[in-house]
Amino acid sequence: MIAFKQSPLLDLFDIRYPLIQAPMAGANDADLVIEVSNAGALGSLPCAMFDVAQAREQLEKIRASSNQPFNVNFFCHEEQAVTERQELRWRDELAPFYKAAGLDLNKPLKAASREPFSESMCQLMEEFSPKVVSFHFGLPDRALLDRLKAAGCKIISSATTVEEAIWLESHGCDAVIAQGVEAGGHRGMFLTSDIATQTASLSLLPQIVDAVSVPVIAAGGFAEARGVKAAFTLGAAAVQLGTAYLFTSESLITDLHRRALLESDSDNTALTNLFSGRPARGLMTRVMQEIGPISAAIPPFPAAGAALAPLKKHYEQQGKTDFTSLWAGQGYAATRRALMTDSAISAKASSVNDLYSVPAAQMTQWLVDAIG
Amino acid sequence: MIAFKQSPLLDLFDIRYPLIQAPMAGANDADLVIEVSNAGALGSLPCAMFDVAQAREQLEKIRASSNQPFNVNFFCHEEQAVTERQELRWRDELAPFYKAAGLDLNKPLKAASREPFSESMCQLMEEFSPKVVSFHFGLPDRALLDRLKAAGCKIISSATTVEEAIWLESHGCDAVIAQGVEAGGHRGMFLTSDIATQTASLSLLPQIVDAVSVPVIAAGGFAEARGVKAAFTLGAAAVQLGTAYLFTSESLITDLHRRALLESDSDNTALTNLFSGRPARGLMTRVMQEIGPISAAIPPFPAAGAALAPLKKHYEQQGKTDFTSLWAGQGYAATRRALMTDSAISAKASSVNDLYSVPAAQMTQWLVDAIG
Repeated sequence: MIAFKQSPLLDLFDIRYPLIQAPMAGANDADLVIEVSNAGALGSLPCAMFDVAQAREQLEKIRASSNQPFNVNFFCHEEQAVTERQELRWRDELAPFYKAAGLDLNKPLKAASREPFSESMCQLMEEFSPKVVSFHFGLPDRALLDRLKAAGCKIISSATTVEEAIWLESHGCDAVIAQGVEAGGHRGMFLTSDIATQTASLSLLPQIVDAVSVPVIAAGGFAEARGVKAAFTLGAAAVQLGTAYLFTSESLITDLHRRALLESDSDNTALTNLFSGRPARGLMTRVMQEIGPISAAIPPFPAAGAALAPLKKHYEQQGKTDFTSLWAGQGYAATRRALMTDSAISAKASSVNDLYSVPAAQMTQWLVDAIG
Repeated sequence: MIAFKQSPLLDLFDIRYPLIQAPMAGANDADLVIEVSNAGALGSLPCAMFDVAQAREQLEKIRASSNQPFNVNFFCHEEQAVTERQELRWRDELAPFYKAAGLDLNKPLKAASREPFSESMCQLMEEFSPKVVSFHFGLPDRALLDRLKAAGCKIISSATTVEEAIWLESHGCDAVIAQGVEAGGHRGMFLTSDIATQTASLSLLPQIVDAVSVPVIAAGGFAEARGVKAAFTLGAAAVQLGTAYLFTSESLITDLHRRALLESDSDNTALTNLFSGRPARGLMTRVMQEIGPISAAIPPFPAAGAALAPLKKHYEQQGKTDFTSLWAGQGYAATRRALMTDSAISAKASSVNDLYSVPAAQMTQWLVDAIG
């Protein structure tokens, strides 16, 4: 067990608390990063859905309001072409839903886009030199990685198996994130595509701690005080939380998503590949129930999402999340309960239109108190 | 957090340590129970594969060698008839494997049997009055339960969701087992059949602790010292371990199973319904890979296993586990590593034919030391 005040990541990342806000593409931008980093933890800016101009704007915003270290996150998947056959098979699967909604399946679709890390993003990182750059789905090419390191960035990435952790260390990561199967959003898996054998943090984390010599960051299932403490018991040098920050006023999730987090039953997430083509964890919704959360008839990441977009829009206009991805980790209900029963944090929460939300700075302090 | 010396289960079960050896039908009998209970923890006798005469013999054996409390475990599923259509569909699925193995699919099969708790087993419990009776798949009828309670037995059962835990408490359980998705063997699920939303111990355990007023026993993923400690951090009153005891000299697993536990990669278990019709976690084997670990074309529990038996036998005669269920929890590799790197325990292990095994009494002490 690493006492949190002795965490090697405090020096490595120049942070006060061994706590990382997980990057959540689409659900957080500079506002959350600023609040978390200024509170002494490590805020993370997700760039998978930004172009270079948008990323620059966000980075300038962070620098204008904080002189604290922060993390910038990128996806680094290989882009795969979608075959016409894949596209047709997926449309066939969705055809009954289009028909029921009165939508035209032959209308051209707007391509779903998740940009992998690139030459131009690397230049932007060299210019801003954030303290930490994190990746999902492995690591980018060695040449780009070397340039980030030369620019002073510490490199981290997610491992979902012991083998991936060893690979990440040997390819230059300064720390490894052990992403348990409980985690919300996309699985970072890159050496395996077998969802069935993905393991939970309790089993994964201590094994990765033993297998690598770099510090290990715990992610997935660490929902409230007891879980956050358990991460350190299990050998983590820091803990990374995403879902908890969805409950903050700075999170960008829609009111529909927020309401679902507040009202869903306790055990209501599943891994699904329907929304992007890659497995990710979110609240169970109608499309996941009716097709089954994992479909083999799916175009490669990130193309699958395009054909769902019109259905998503259609139902959201009726106030329904039938075809909406509602990313959340398994711990969302534990976090919800802990937040709502903690009188100190509840006092600071706002409940505009019955939608509970906590300022990110207070959320960070609440999590820090849990660690100590 | 419950300090382990203050666990309410020490009094309730009259045990010295808040540690339970999980009942493992087919993998343990009286020998393991005696060793574990005499070492101050709670040994468990699984009766799902015994008839009354066999169970009596085991109980007499325990009583002859131990005056310590122990647990007797039963399945309490409702027996479902298998339709001819279900049977044919499953045979169709298996036909190519039969053909490749040169086996005759039309030979009569020996029925796979898992007996649910019954009137005659209840009489046996009244006669022996074990300290604890535990159930899997819910609880038996109220009348049988009342007789067990009148005989002085404490009743426990497994919950895989918060809802199941609340149900078990309200139906008379003296303690509830929170069975995280990491656990080896059969999922105890009984109010839900949705595998996709089953949660890991990190999320499940603290939520169940908050939802019920009876003590909660942690099960699933608690593989070695750090995990066992974490169970108490997460609010457990005791921890239940099965997979760890597979590594003992008293476990009844075959040499093939033992070798697979010793040699498999770190992340190699999955939930599968192929072997019995109900989801259970075990090491990935060929049949799970080729059909996929979960099949919809499966007769109801426990009938599915019958048609696999000839294939199992055929390949086991060649020293292969292609069609064998190798139950194990996600933590098996963490336990293995911890055992083998602990010089005190390694010194006591025997390595007959290269098959590492630890005396159950030492295993129990090793786990107790981890708690303390």
